[in-house]
Amino acid sequence: MRDVAIVGVGQTRVGELWEKSLRQLGYDAIDAAMKDAGVEKADSLFVGNMLSGELAGQEHLATLIADFMGMRGIEAAKIEAACASGAAALRVGTMAVASGMADVVIVAGVEKMTDTLPPETTAGLALAADQEYEVAEGATFLALNAMLMQRYMHEYGCTREQLAEVAVAARKWAQLNPDAFERGDLTIEDVAKARMISDPLTKLDCCLVTDGGAAIVMTRADRAKDCPKTPIHLLGAAMEHHHRNISAMPELTVTATAKSGPRAFEMAGMKPADMDTVQVYDAFTINTILFLEDLGFCAKGEGKDFVSGGRIAPGGELPVNTNGGGLSCVHPGMYGLFVMAEAIRQARGECGDRQVKDAKVSLAHGNGGVLSSQV
Amino acid sequence: MRDVAIVGVGQTRVGELWEKSLRQLGYDAIDAAMKDAGVEKADSLFVGNMLSGELAGQEHLATLIADFMGMRGIEAAKIEAACASGAAALRVGTMAVASGMADVVIVAGVEKMTDTLPPETTAGLALAADQEYEVAEGATFLALNAMLMQRYMHEYGCTREQLAEVAVAARKWAQLNPDAFERGDLTIEDVAKARMISDPLTKLDCCLVTDGGAAIVMTRADRAKDCPKTPIHLLGAAMEHHHRNISAMPELTVTATAKSGPRAFEMAGMKPADMDTVQVYDAFTINTILFLEDLGFCAKGEGKDFVSGGRIAPGGELPVNTNGGGLSCVHPGMYGLFVMAEAIRQARGECGDRQVKDAKVSLAHGNGGVLSSQV
Repeated sequence: MRDVAIVGVGQTRVGELWEKSLRQLGYDAIDAAMKDAGVEKADSLFVGNMLSGELAGQEHLATLIADFMGMRGIEAAKIEAACASGAAALRVGTMAVASGMADVVIVAGVEKMTDTLPPETTAGLALAADQEYEVAEGATFLALNAMLMQRYMHEYGCTREQLAEVAVAARKWAQLNPDAFERGDLTIEDVAKARMISDPLTKLDCCLVTDGGAAIVMTRADRAKDCPKTPIHLLGAAMEHHHRNISAMPELTVTATAKSGPRAFEMAGMKPADMDTVQVYDAFTINTILFLEDLGFCAKGEGKDFVSGGRIAPGGELPVNTNGGGLSCVHPGMYGLFVMAEAIRQARGECGDRQVKDAKVSLAHGNGGVLSSQV
Repeated sequence: MRDVAIVGVGQTRVGELWEKSLRQLGYDAIDAAMKDAGVEKADSLFVGNMLSGELAGQEHLATLIADFMGMRGIEAAKIEAACASGAAALRVGTMAVASGMADVVIVAGVEKMTDTLPPETTAGLALAADQEYEVAEGATFLALNAMLMQRYMHEYGCTREQLAEVAVAARKWAQLNPDAFERGDLTIEDVAKARMISDPLTKLDCCLVTDGGAAIVMTRADRAKDCPKTPIHLLGAAMEHHHRNISAMPELTVTATAKSGPRAFEMAGMKPADMDTVQVYDAFTINTILFLEDLGFCAKGEGKDFVSGGRIAPGGELPVNTNGGGLSCVHPGMYGLFVMAEAIRQARGECGDRQVKDAKVSLAHGNGGVLSSQV
């Protein structure tokens, strides 16, 4: 396997970008990433996206974006694994470079979620659940995640306030990030008393709904030396799933990250304590707690204490989701690439007020479905 | 790059399979391919599919199928490039094995198109066109292809009858294939006088609409020796596009296959004359003619004569689409993998009445959008 390096990263603004079409968001992110990498063409484009068919009536999306950018001659495909689409696309991009089948690969993650009315967007997100066995019974994505949250609280005595700590820590990071979507002050009480969505999940336990896009340029390590920015090396990666629906989870509080995490660490020859920052996929406050446990940053059941008292907030022991995460920066749909973009920017020392001192090594994590696909 | 071998192939029945769900079709194809390969587990599953979101309300499809099969721990993602989805998934599977990131990879292509009413299915297929610049103006997929057909006839003096020759040759092959969907007798006059869909395209110039699935198991060449069937080696491959919409085609009769074809031949160290069979993606009769030209089997404008007089039919000079193709065997949506499945079965000598004598080397081709993505 050839050594793979990330040489460019680009992001669009995030939010309700009604003036930007889906293809334009892809264009903006990719154009920024290519300029950052100092490359003018690429061999392959893999676009992570889940909702283009449902919300924009558009498939064959990767070629649409490639063509709009004038990138003819490139190979292009869309990669879909629900909210892990961006992370899965990154994995395919890695394979393309590592196999020698491509030299310069662009991986993009783009979603447009705010042009449709909330019920349509919610129905779109439900495409990640099981249409025949879950959605048909009335289970929404929020209800399914609330069940997991309920179980964790019951099993480990986690309090409402401890869950809220995750949202508050994310907001504190977002306040240091001028590009984050939600930057207002937030307290534990605000989260606990916000509008109830599906008990115990309140509105502020949930990630944002935004438009946006991010892109990454990857190449082989020896070519990376010619690029203007310090190349960031991909040391280890793994993807797997142990359940599709939560009805198939042997334990509702353990995800496949407990397997894919150690595999990625082993490939990198590293351990959790070696990480300077951790960027995990937080669609809901409970996610951060479960993933930190499954990744080995603390034991099962201890995540609730691990996130308490500002320990994952700015100035805390472990910097987690330093851009503000899915809870305060950008909707997780495209957050799969934003986690990687943030890990790269931290390693480059480009993060301004939120820069973690001497951050060299980061873990970037992706999640799709109800804690199902784990990257 | 590691040498990649195909060691298993499986197909479902094709047709109106109302008793089979989308995940069941995936299961059936993959189960058959794994048994054929003599493997009980795999590292990765890549599912080529375009329409699951639109027609079945289901995304996160690859994990759904993996889970339904009890394949936990596997990595799974859906690959989408319109009708080239199966071919693109095959390319991603090749990258996975060639990079050393996976040892045993399953690539599946599955579509369910007959549970919805024809207008819904047509709207689903239109997701491959450009929603904002084509579909909004009323262009259907059929109308767009009819324009190309019209242009070719004008430019090269191709007759209505010569186009019909393609459909008749495909049907003759289908009559030798017990698994093909349409096997009745067909004449040039039948095609020419069939119901007009979009001038000059009649119903019988168009591919079928069916449900079905196919799957392929790939592994590294040294491991392939342990599998029961003769391993079939992937010698060369390439994917690219030169236009997304036909309004961007400099010439309406030339596709990106004129570039991706020679690249694949070069990688394989072979030329068109070395091919024992050719399996091209025939969504419409005009497709076969254009692709044979672009692949170098004849010069531009000569395809109309190349397909005439039964020269691509059983007993002709070049066996093309020996399973009956998209026109008579199975809808192109999943035909992207069926082209490869047929190439493999021909090389293994498993094709019964339609077996091409001493067929060792085949070309398998994929097409997505309006002659856009070319694999």
